[in-house]
Amino acid sequence: MNDKFSSLWLDYKPLFPGFTGRAAIRCPSRVDRQGAAVSELITALKAMLPAAELTFGADSAGLIFELDIGDFLDVEEYMISADERGAAVIGGSERGLMYGVFAYLREIRTAGSLVRMNKRVRPALGLRMLDHWDNADGTVERGYSGSSFFFREGKLVVDERTEMYARLIASAGINAAAINNVNVRGDAVRLIAEENLPGLARLSELFSRWGIALYLSIDFSAPISVGGMRTADPLDPAVGYWWSNKARELWKAAPGLGGFLVKADSEGQPGPYAYGRDHADGANMLARAVKPFGGRIIWRAFVYNCTQDWRDERTDRACAGYRTFAPLDGHFDANVILQVKNGPMDFQVREPVHPLFGAMRHTALAAEFQLAQEYTGQQLHVCCLLPMFREILMWNTACDIQPGRVIDRIQAAAAVANTGDSFCWTGSELAGANLYGFGRLTFEPQLTAEDIIDEWISLTFGSSERVREALLQILLGSHRAYEGYTAPLGLGWLCKPGTHYGPDPWGYEFDRWGTYNRADREAVGVDRSRTGYTSLYPEPLRELYSDPEKCPDELLLFFCRVKYTHVLHSGKTVIQHIYDSHFDGYAEAEEFARLWDSIESELDPAVYDNGRRRFKEQLRSAGEWRDVINAFFHRLSGVPDEQGRKLY
Amino acid sequence: MNDKFSSLWLDYKPLFPGFTGRAAIRCPSRVDRQGAAVSELITALKAMLPAAELTFGADSAGLIFELDIGDFLDVEEYMISADERGAAVIGGSERGLMYGVFAYLREIRTAGSLVRMNKRVRPALGLRMLDHWDNADGTVERGYSGSSFFFREGKLVVDERTEMYARLIASAGINAAAINNVNVRGDAVRLIAEENLPGLARLSELFSRWGIALYLSIDFSAPISVGGMRTADPLDPAVGYWWSNKARELWKAAPGLGGFLVKADSEGQPGPYAYGRDHADGANMLARAVKPFGGRIIWRAFVYNCTQDWRDERTDRACAGYRTFAPLDGHFDANVILQVKNGPMDFQVREPVHPLFGAMRHTALAAEFQLAQEYTGQQLHVCCLLPMFREILMWNTACDIQPGRVIDRIQAAAAVANTGDSFCWTGSELAGANLYGFGRLTFEPQLTAEDIIDEWISLTFGSSERVREALLQILLGSHRAYEGYTAPLGLGWLCKPGTHYGPDPWGYEFDRWGTYNRADREAVGVDRSRTGYTSLYPEPLRELYSDPEKCPDELLLFFCRVKYTHVLHSGKTVIQHIYDSHFDGYAEAEEFARLWDSIESELDPAVYDNGRRRFKEQLRSAGEWRDVINAFFHRLSGVPDEQGRKLY
Repeated sequence: MNDKFSSLWLDYKPLFPGFTGRAAIRCPSRVDRQGAAVSELITALKAMLPAAELTFGADSAGLIFELDIGDFLDVEEYMISADERGAAVIGGSERGLMYGVFAYLREIRTAGSLVRMNKRVRPALGLRMLDHWDNADGTVERGYSGSSFFFREGKLVVDERTEMYARLIASAGINAAAINNVNVRGDAVRLIAEENLPGLARLSELFSRWGIALYLSIDFSAPISVGGMRTADPLDPAVGYWWSNKARELWKAAPGLGGFLVKADSEGQPGPYAYGRDHADGANMLARAVKPFGGRIIWRAFVYNCTQDWRDERTDRACAGYRTFAPLDGHFDANVILQVKNGPMDFQVREPVHPLFGAMRHTALAAEFQLAQEYTGQQLHVCCLLPMFREILMWNTACDIQPGRVIDRIQAAAAVANTGDSFCWTGSELAGANLYGFGRLTFEPQLTAEDIIDEWISLTFGSSERVREALLQILLGSHRAYEGYTAPLGLGWLCKPGTHYGPDPWGYEFDRWGTYNRADREAVGVDRSRTGYTSLYPEPLRELYSDPEKCPDELLLFFCRVKYTHVLHSGKTVIQHIYDSHFDGYAEAEEFARLWDSIESELDPAVYDNGRRRFKEQLRSAGEWRDVINAFFHRLSGVPDEQGRKLY
Repeated sequence: MNDKFSSLWLDYKPLFPGFTGRAAIRCPSRVDRQGAAVSELITALKAMLPAAELTFGADSAGLIFELDIGDFLDVEEYMISADERGAAVIGGSERGLMYGVFAYLREIRTAGSLVRMNKRVRPALGLRMLDHWDNADGTVERGYSGSSFFFREGKLVVDERTEMYARLIASAGINAAAINNVNVRGDAVRLIAEENLPGLARLSELFSRWGIALYLSIDFSAPISVGGMRTADPLDPAVGYWWSNKARELWKAAPGLGGFLVKADSEGQPGPYAYGRDHADGANMLARAVKPFGGRIIWRAFVYNCTQDWRDERTDRACAGYRTFAPLDGHFDANVILQVKNGPMDFQVREPVHPLFGAMRHTALAAEFQLAQEYTGQQLHVCCLLPMFREILMWNTACDIQPGRVIDRIQAAAAVANTGDSFCWTGSELAGANLYGFGRLTFEPQLTAEDIIDEWISLTFGSSERVREALLQILLGSHRAYEGYTAPLGLGWLCKPGTHYGPDPWGYEFDRWGTYNRADREAVGVDRSRTGYTSLYPEPLRELYSDPEKCPDELLLFFCRVKYTHVLHSGKTVIQHIYDSHFDGYAEAEEFARLWDSIESELDPAVYDNGRRRFKEQLRSAGEWRDVINAFFHRLSGVPDEQGRKLY
């Protein structure tokens, strides 16, 4: 514990303060005694068994913790066999062993005892990544947790907080991190320039120790901005040569580099289109440059026309990613991973699953999620995203291929991080569940959201049953509540433009972003079978989504245009559902605040107070959402509330 | 002419290039030969009579220009007696004489000959002022003409552009200028501190030469921010003492100072409320400090609650200025001028005249206008405000007092300047008419807007009849056209929040600014007899404004809430008027662009091109306004356009 940052779920507390015997760590010489696995075990045992005599080597008189590496396991796989006398943990490599140690420590901490267990676990996805939108000047785009701890005034920072960061995310199962904003601007353009090599070397060494590959977001036009060339045309041999040399230079300095993350031809970022090339041309050129060093290119699929005319009803932004990338399926090199946002728009509270997950069968894919609560309350509102993330991972993309779930179709998962230099890392203590849970879920997606949240509560807040019940109720219900008072029936973009906080139901309606609800006095929503969007899904999904009578209620206004009097599967009319969900969502938020107050005595006063202030703002804002959105639809529809509640 | 700034209407061209005789300036010793009147006459004659022999003193063989000062005239009054042999100009002081010289030069330039005339003119208002919203860092709040020429990187600038500025505004009749933003922030707080005295001295000396009093916007809490005190309580004797000393220090360095301009307790600015004092307490304390030096306090009446709850239908921002200041009538010292915006909201395209002009009978008043086109197209749209300004000045505030026009009730007029460091000073050449015309109108309000515009065209663009006709048509019709496609029937605040450019009809609807249209599917507008606002006007205005059947069409939706099917005096329904005025306003804008193109051959290519680019943007934006506002009301009302035009 220090006064700059919390240890979050790695705050090891005495587990057996009365145990005064010996505890021995045993491992053969092939295990690195300076490595993360051994050092974490020592750190944990010292804290949990403060009175024990900790030794290395054979000792049959006390607790024994055996660590080993076994070739029969995958690199990141581990096995644990444990009972009340200790444990044996075997990893497929130092990394697997580290995950095993973290898993074992988790088990005994949540159980509160030396548990009897046998377990063999391999991560479901090979790449589990955080994307930080940190700018070189120390600001964080869509950051709600303070400033960057990676950058300060244009300089890369590697300090004790960086080490704690690496331990924290490694313990949650994350194995890669892109440390700078995909919108590469200002000094960040030169992150790959010579002057930054020493800093990158230090950071990649630190990351490697915790099994984390360092990724860098790059400026596609770096041959010009950094190299002084006159073109960044991916098919120009001089450009490829420049990138090859750059990659050699980078990997020589920082062998722990994982690769590059690229946002190209999107929202003003440069890309291959400037040279009449396509995205495969752009990505493959880079992929070839980094291939000799085992590097990968994460290429974002978030490409759309952000200068659309709102009067144009034929163009549908939801189609853009599919139309751009589906024709390129099979054209990407093996070390390119196409990073596809979970839905076709942009991290709204509720979106359908992106059709590219079903369509790109010959391309390595990453699913991109957003932990930063850009559209989900900005860490002032509690909004646990894990139930939604899991639902998406388990969603079946198509009925004609087996296995067809998103988790089966992807090789990687990435999430926009929600961290900053706030004491608790994520602004709100409760937002830590999203950070922790994203790692755990992509490592072991068979876990339910409730399993993971429960585990996180126990590791972070201890074993009080009252705390556990209150926080489980808050976190498990939080996304549904937020959806209730902000975004009924799949309708997105009702938020204020720019900040994306608070309601402004027509703030995006007459603008250039392709984000329209087309509400009028009779009906609301976009008929996405007319725009061609539903045809991007295979049958029977296509029909399901095209037909207002069949479409799931929670996505109805995403896919269909219906009258306010349309009757949902729930039996309610659309307009009454809108009113009810806003009143109910607000009431749920009130209940969350009440639950938080009810456990005040069991919380650290600073943690309680931080939460209390945020719940106060959540309630103010939720009331605003409720009244504005209900007023909007009431003024348009003219339909009174069945229950006669106040509408403005 | 130079390449940094234009001479605008003072670009003297040869008037009689063939005149090779003598031209003599004659004046007694009481006229300052280094003064503005003489020097301007010399500058003009040299340019207009390039081949003449210019002499001082008696000379009966050529043209004779006699300048004198006469005690029988008011300080700013002048007389001109002229014929084809020359002119005699007499002023009540050097200042009056300068105005006389400018007037005489204007007459012969617009006439194109040495006219025969007899004229005696005294300005209608004693204080004719420009308020610059220039920040110390060189930016300009609501500036659409480039950066500040008064401030650069925190430093006051006095250079040849400052001299040209003084000549320009003096020639238009302006006699005061507040050079810094009423929102006093950053380095501007220290504008009255010791380090800035030398700069203020230089500037006030330059201004004085052209009859311009220098005003400074001050931070009401300067005793704290500059003086290091712990309070700025206006009733604390130490605070008054601090301001007295400060005034002595300032006037000693810069005797040409006019006084202070103060925005207090408004939109976050500090003020007397912090100490439980009222605005008279605040203003009078300052007034007493500056009184020994002949200084004045211009105190803004723009005070309202900018954190209103949109759900609160009883609070009406329009009432705020009246409710705050009317009870203080008679409480202000004689050297306080209360500066009241022309309407009760904030420089919207159309507002009723502020009720304070009729109510404050024992307080010196200034009418505040805005030349900076914040809500009127930001100098990208052509919008000549002179017809509106004149209408307001001539408006009768109350039928029971004579004379009761605004111009009779005020002692001063101020306008937020539209200048910057762009070559033509106002971003758009056509916006120069507003700058010029504001001065002329407040000097001689008996002139019509057409008189003034015509004069300005002639002085700025020369004598071509085609140019004159085209520009007159554009300028005289421009405000009506802008109103047509943006703000029907007195409805304001349909613009984008923040920038105030482009349409966003509900951008201000659910926010904290007190700016609501309350549109729903049946009706639109706020019933301002219910909020108490119409009761702030005397009868018969009160009844006129309260009754939708009597209320003038152009203010109907400001004062009344009516159904879309309500029939206007024009015979049209409200909804059809909205549609028509948007289509018609756009068509007028198209006609303006066409007219501009039609005179291309007679314009300086750079001037033409600047205008052409602005008309292109005006048309794009006007189309956006037309389609968004019509879509908004069409979606709400469901009423089709009678003419079947496309609505979205």
